[in-house]
Amino acid sequence: MARQIQKEIQRGVESWISLGNRRPHLSIILVGDNPASHTYVRKKIQAASAVGICSEIILKPKDVSQEELLYITDQLNMDPRVTGILVQLPLPGHVDERTVCNGISPEKDVDGFHIINIGRLCLDQHSLIPATASAVWEIIKRTGIKTFGKNVVVAGRSKNVGMPIAMLLHTDGEHERPGGSEIIWYLSFSAWLISLSIIPSSSIHVVANGDATVTIAHRYTPREQLKIHTQLADIIIVAAGIPKLITSDMVKEGAAVIDVGINYVHDPVTGKTKLVGDVDFEAVRKAASFITPVPGGVGPVTVAMLLKNTLLAARKVID
Amino acid sequence: MARQIQKEIQRGVESWISLGNRRPHLSIILVGDNPASHTYVRKKIQAASAVGICSEIILKPKDVSQEELLYITDQLNMDPRVTGILVQLPLPGHVDERTVCNGISPEKDVDGFHIINIGRLCLDQHSLIPATASAVWEIIKRTGIKTFGKNVVVAGRSKNVGMPIAMLLHTDGEHERPGGSEIIWYLSFSAWLISLSIIPSSSIHVVANGDATVTIAHRYTPREQLKIHTQLADIIIVAAGIPKLITSDMVKEGAAVIDVGINYVHDPVTGKTKLVGDVDFEAVRKAASFITPVPGGVGPVTVAMLLKNTLLAARKVID
Repeated sequence: MARQIQKEIQRGVESWISLGNRRPHLSIILVGDNPASHTYVRKKIQAASAVGICSEIILKPKDVSQEELLYITDQLNMDPRVTGILVQLPLPGHVDERTVCNGISPEKDVDGFHIINIGRLCLDQHSLIPATASAVWEIIKRTGIKTFGKNVVVAGRSKNVGMPIAMLLHTDGEHERPGGSEIIWYLSFSAWLISLSIIPSSSIHVVANGDATVTIAHRYTPREQLKIHTQLADIIIVAAGIPKLITSDMVKEGAAVIDVGINYVHDPVTGKTKLVGDVDFEAVRKAASFITPVPGGVGPVTVAMLLKNTLLAARKVID
Repeated sequence: MARQIQKEIQRGVESWISLGNRRPHLSIILVGDNPASHTYVRKKIQAASAVGICSEIILKPKDVSQEELLYITDQLNMDPRVTGILVQLPLPGHVDERTVCNGISPEKDVDGFHIINIGRLCLDQHSLIPATASAVWEIIKRTGIKTFGKNVVVAGRSKNVGMPIAMLLHTDGEHERPGGSEIIWYLSFSAWLISLSIIPSSSIHVVANGDATVTIAHRYTPREQLKIHTQLADIIIVAAGIPKLITSDMVKEGAAVIDVGINYVHDPVTGKTKLVGDVDFEAVRKAASFITPVPGGVGPVTVAMLLKNTLLAARKVID
């Protein structure tokens, strides 16, 4: 699916350029030497390159001042060559992440973390949606999982992941909204690609999302209550950062399980560190009708959705 | 409780003025001749007057243009005499409510509907909170209803009521957030009043809120699913606009029920129109440990919280 989305974005980028527009350009600000952050940024750069989006990394030492970061974002905001800006989180403790996120111009804010983009998302208006939430949304849409009137549990309330997912899924599918605009964008963009004979019309599949009954659970939800809620759920989305938080006894037969967890655990057998999600995958896959693995599930789609945001920002379709 | 809050605000206003500050001033823009809107505005003006807040109504005919409304808000934004601005909703169909709400300067936006205030609320930052959500929060806080790890159902997903209530109640009670800042504000403001011997220290009761598991239900939640969720709930908050949506069989013994509904129904016995909420009050009160009536429950506290926002805006405590 990630590859499919990337292919669509690549075609979108080519069409955009063939109409005489400048190639989209993503600037990534990376602070310090956190190995995970460096890995993520490298993946983003590679993926951008693969779809024809220019990118650059602005690397700063971990003692960089907040003022300097704000000066950099200001420069990038004003630079017409730069269409998308991203500050890789987390930032060192002496820098206020919220201030830096708000320092990026909302229309170049491809992570969707600016307060205006969050406000627009929460008010069901067009916005650049945080890529992880957008990835979950896209997975649900493209696999045809029904959300209308369904019970959804979102385990995890982070502002970048759990909260926007809960927002997207409970709101009105008919309303002007990120979901709505996504679909409108997808349809109009697809219609445009079809009209240019870039993609065949048979490649369009749209399922309206949203209108689910959403339960937001988190660290203070008692385990037995979480189980009661997940057993009622048609869709379980987990972004808690706790390996094996969701076990097979917690999942209703036929439910969809989307695992957003990223946990590095020590494997006693191999002695190596391995990446696992928040779901007991092998056990839960037997009950679930649909499940995303970690690694290889939400992660690659998230990177693709970041690139889609970069294209959206370049096309300035979010006013 | 509304009277108690009003009394606190009145003392706050007096103290604020006694320190040499200008009296808070609320400007209300009222469009057209909707009788309910005129009634609400009258109540707000009366309550403002009772606590010593100046107010004015700017009355415009229902064919007023959006440009004129934005011109008026611009003038009020720049007027140092005006500390709070409110546009009574709903507006006529030819005016975009969102554009007008965003036309009010965020620090004078006592309704908390500006996109920056909504964004701040959703990001757990200090903000002016929409008065109805703030009223529900205050009722829970002052009656000592526990929210930590409890199950809450919010029935209704409106952007002015259901959504902000769900936001406040699921988030982290320890974090910088509207709840947290509320408590910090309340404590520091109370400490200040105590230090001035305006109120006795025995009048301070604080319960930290938030950290609840919150389920957002709405018109597309199937009735039997709503019942399953409400039966699990320790707190039920209803803002759906459907008389008798919540019946006694849906309520767990000992739950708290907060009714935000406002419905005008025809009474076949008296032949008159009467105001009712969304809860079958007489039946549900037997099961519930706590219940708010309509009229006389959330409504008066909402007006009080609007005045509190007006005082907060005048004191510019929200940066």
